[in-house]
Amino acid sequence: MNQTKVRAYGTESAEAPLNQLSISRRAATPHDVEIEIAYCGVCHSDLHTARNEWHGTVYPCVPGHEIVGKIVSLGDHVSKFKLGDMVGVGCMVDSCRECQYCKEGLEQYCEPGATQTYNSPDKHLGTQTYGGYSERIVVDESFVLRIPANLDLAATAPLLCAGITTYSPLKHWKVGPGMKVGIVGIGGLGHMGIKIARAMGAHVVAFTTSESKFAEAKRLGADEVVLSKDDKQMAAFHGKLHFILDAVSAQHDINAYLALLRVDGSLALVGAPEYPLPVSAFSLIPGRKSLAGSMIGGIAETQEMLDFCGEHNITSDIEMIDIEQINEAYERLLKGDVRYRFVIDMSAFRNEKSEV
Amino acid sequence: MNQTKVRAYGTESAEAPLNQLSISRRAATPHDVEIEIAYCGVCHSDLHTARNEWHGTVYPCVPGHEIVGKIVSLGDHVSKFKLGDMVGVGCMVDSCRECQYCKEGLEQYCEPGATQTYNSPDKHLGTQTYGGYSERIVVDESFVLRIPANLDLAATAPLLCAGITTYSPLKHWKVGPGMKVGIVGIGGLGHMGIKIARAMGAHVVAFTTSESKFAEAKRLGADEVVLSKDDKQMAAFHGKLHFILDAVSAQHDINAYLALLRVDGSLALVGAPEYPLPVSAFSLIPGRKSLAGSMIGGIAETQEMLDFCGEHNITSDIEMIDIEQINEAYERLLKGDVRYRFVIDMSAFRNEKSEV
Repeated sequence: MNQTKVRAYGTESAEAPLNQLSISRRAATPHDVEIEIAYCGVCHSDLHTARNEWHGTVYPCVPGHEIVGKIVSLGDHVSKFKLGDMVGVGCMVDSCRECQYCKEGLEQYCEPGATQTYNSPDKHLGTQTYGGYSERIVVDESFVLRIPANLDLAATAPLLCAGITTYSPLKHWKVGPGMKVGIVGIGGLGHMGIKIARAMGAHVVAFTTSESKFAEAKRLGADEVVLSKDDKQMAAFHGKLHFILDAVSAQHDINAYLALLRVDGSLALVGAPEYPLPVSAFSLIPGRKSLAGSMIGGIAETQEMLDFCGEHNITSDIEMIDIEQINEAYERLLKGDVRYRFVIDMSAFRNEKSEV
Repeated sequence: MNQTKVRAYGTESAEAPLNQLSISRRAATPHDVEIEIAYCGVCHSDLHTARNEWHGTVYPCVPGHEIVGKIVSLGDHVSKFKLGDMVGVGCMVDSCRECQYCKEGLEQYCEPGATQTYNSPDKHLGTQTYGGYSERIVVDESFVLRIPANLDLAATAPLLCAGITTYSPLKHWKVGPGMKVGIVGIGGLGHMGIKIARAMGAHVVAFTTSESKFAEAKRLGADEVVLSKDDKQMAAFHGKLHFILDAVSAQHDINAYLALLRVDGSLALVGAPEYPLPVSAFSLIPGRKSLAGSMIGGIAETQEMLDFCGEHNITSDIEMIDIEQINEAYERLLKGDVRYRFVIDMSAFRNEKSEV
């Protein structure tokens, strides 16, 4: 299979910092598009995988699954796109396409497992897949998304993961006008959750452990803000919320939030705390409540999310960095020191003089 | 308010055995029916309450909320029933009737709280309510159910709690043909769950910790039976079940069951383990799964359940006892030594010579 070398940023081991690497990309097959990456968002999963915190990382590892860029070449059978289109790639670049879930547009729950944008077996090259911290990527058009023209391109990159991760559960649990929705945690995911839930017409109640984020939460679109460590503020919402999106990946008391749900309410986890959460049966039984989880979204739904964000002019709040700043950005990410998503400007990377 | 004394069985303290007591019943008000109790099922909640294991028990305590009997008098405005009708009373005898949940027929989730059949404040007499371990009970007709004529009356009593507790979640989560449904625990609740899920048309998979219950589970209607402590048997059902009804009140590994759910599957707890269950976010997120709970059912739904059981000729498997055997029955209940519900025959009680 024809291959070309492209510059990327990645790591050779769990302990090593990210550095420039040379990786192979396949030449576009008939259904592929080749994308010159303009921007790539920095997701906490990138750091978990680079450092093998979820185990199973194969090195070298090139993270990045919030990719936007321009189509610079395409295969003969590509029908959805043309040269020069601005497009996006999220957390998946392929799936089996044959299982019941793929057929329902739930590729994220593909039975044999979707091909993740990085650190999945690459069907074409036999290596692992390499993500968006790179100059170019080649992806089957079925897993490529159109970017609404009115949105700022850099600030759109995080929609490919943080956007769909919050949009999908808000849509699945039918959030809309007349509903009171809680968003727990105001970070990369939570700040998107606030914006999207508000745009869907819900009354949005943001929960934070930090009083300093009150004004921020309001600016992002929250109708009300609750200091979650204040029992009195929490009690005022007992039995009041139709749905809660929980974007906190630190350990926290989930029963305190289940108490805020109305009868038949659901709380969906999109942050994944490392250790099991103690859940009392008495938090669920006396109101037919549900504790659920949700993972990104399907491809058609991701396009729907992008179109929705286009209509409502929603993007992520970002801080732009150069690729050389990625190790420093990871350290700041660990401290929660970003409002609310780092996005790597790949143009600087391309303009370097270094040869592959 | 006119009152009469009736014989009952109850306890004066958490430590005391149940003994004969004399309690007051109001004379039937215009909307009340007076029921001569024929049979009363013995629910584990009776024992928990009698022994103050859930705290908040007010003594004397007369348990019993699986009540069937005959109407022996009625108020002027009673429209649903006539003298001599065979009727049932379950876990509730009243609710606020004004909150959003009551108006939706979800009296079990009444906002100010439904009036439980026992150990709730009695609006009429100012005492606590007294349950079905008694000769007669007076209940507003709105909380009284019709018993299908074809069903064995004694074996119908447990439907009023164990039946509706399992029917309601099976109905709510739309169990029916084409669905694979797990029932965890084959006891008072679980054995009803197997019968009802099968009658709803589902493929029923029963889970038990005891190989000795395999034949029993099949007899009750399970299509397949799984020994839950055998990892290999469990693994064969990974990702296969649409819904799981979990009727186990002992501590158990809930993540092992969440793994058996398909994408979008729900597990509903109807047994309430005493301590919080550790739930991994990774058990929920990668399949958009839900861990839920459910509590009895509304009054209209309880009637629907009874009619469904009438059509499908479903009753509980019972062991009949006299009221004097109740303390012994409690001890056997603690050991799981009953297949599958004790039912008290109240006629023996009435035929006693002792005076109130």
